[in-house]
Amino acid sequence: MSGIFISFEGPDGAGKTTALNKLMPLLQKRTDKEIVLSREPGGSPISEKIRKIILDIDDEEMDPRTEALLYAASRRQHLIDVILPTLQADKIMLSDRFVDSSIAYQGGGREIGTKSVAEINDFAIDGHLPDLTIYFDVSPEVGLARIRQDHEGAMDRLEKEAISFHNRVYDSYSELVKNNPQRIKTINAEQAPDQVVSDALAVIISRFPNIFNKGE
Amino acid sequence: MSGIFISFEGPDGAGKTTALNKLMPLLQKRTDKEIVLSREPGGSPISEKIRKIILDIDDEEMDPRTEALLYAASRRQHLIDVILPTLQADKIMLSDRFVDSSIAYQGGGREIGTKSVAEINDFAIDGHLPDLTIYFDVSPEVGLARIRQDHEGAMDRLEKEAISFHNRVYDSYSELVKNNPQRIKTINAEQAPDQVVSDALAVIISRFPNIFNKGE
Repeated sequence: MSGIFISFEGPDGAGKTTALNKLMPLLQKRTDKEIVLSREPGGSPISEKIRKIILDIDDEEMDPRTEALLYAASRRQHLIDVILPTLQADKIMLSDRFVDSSIAYQGGGREIGTKSVAEINDFAIDGHLPDLTIYFDVSPEVGLARIRQDHEGAMDRLEKEAISFHNRVYDSYSELVKNNPQRIKTINAEQAPDQVVSDALAVIISRFPNIFNKGE
Repeated sequence: MSGIFISFEGPDGAGKTTALNKLMPLLQKRTDKEIVLSREPGGSPISEKIRKIILDIDDEEMDPRTEALLYAASRRQHLIDVILPTLQADKIMLSDRFVDSSIAYQGGGREIGTKSVAEINDFAIDGHLPDLTIYFDVSPEVGLARIRQDHEGAMDRLEKEAISFHNRVYDSYSELVKNNPQRIKTINAEQAPDQVVSDALAVIISRFPNIFNKGE
């Protein structure tokens, strides 16, 4: 494996997806390695079938542990079909969400317990943690206000959950950041969008100076 | 919870399903409690959707860990939708396969490791192990010969696996039997079908004499 694997994490409304779309060409200018952007379950037909069951609004009676196991299954297949082949081809993998999302959303948000959700995800990823995780730090209040503005009536099941859910997600993310200081780097996602992109860029370049060294 | 939960385990071709159909009316004659027979994912719409993904012949590229997580997810939802409500209603639950199948087939057969498959299943069942497990002991040779006779060209994906797979499944079951002497009771499933049923009946009655006490 000679590629690098970077995940992007944060609560709903943190602006990850928008930032990633801007970040991608800026990173590409600085390296000859190909950069691949993926969001689970993208590009894996089995993962997409699994995700369809999770997000089906008719499945409202789904148990939280069933949901956590399905997310882990979808992640495993995405890892096998998309992430590992990208890294084996010496490319750079940017992933919009990865294991930390399950730990924060299912473990913390749905109160199954962060430790047990981390364990089933350890089984799923079998050691393949990201080399670097960028955490978009935004308070639940600011994050939810952004979602409400963007989506109007089109919120999915997770986003419909109450503010207490989002507070638990936020607390679990904070705990993950505290416990993984080497892997997870925090940026302030309440800043103006361009500043968020610029901060993320700086973190990535300073972590991998020999890879993002073009055009300086 | 006042009902009782009995699972039936064994390699392919052990004759579990046939024996269960004969056993059910014999047990019912001996108790006033209602007996419910279920096979995962029966009776749980979400579990059935999950199982459909696992058994889809187009999904041949499915990773073994993905498969194990999907079985655990399907089991969790079946437990919530079918098994726990049955036990809460003071009924007797007979289940054709449960956690031991995953440990033997995915952990042993697919070589993921019985310990790690046991862990994700612990997450799924959250302490709800069967009160009694009847293990139908049949050698891989005899079991496979029976399957070949019954199914002809209609074997599913798992049954198509090689003899070495079935040997690993058998060894894992033997290990489970050795490590769970209180919960798992073995019967010789290479005997004539009526003797197998009669042995299973005797094991169940002797374990729960106060429940199966009618018409003696």
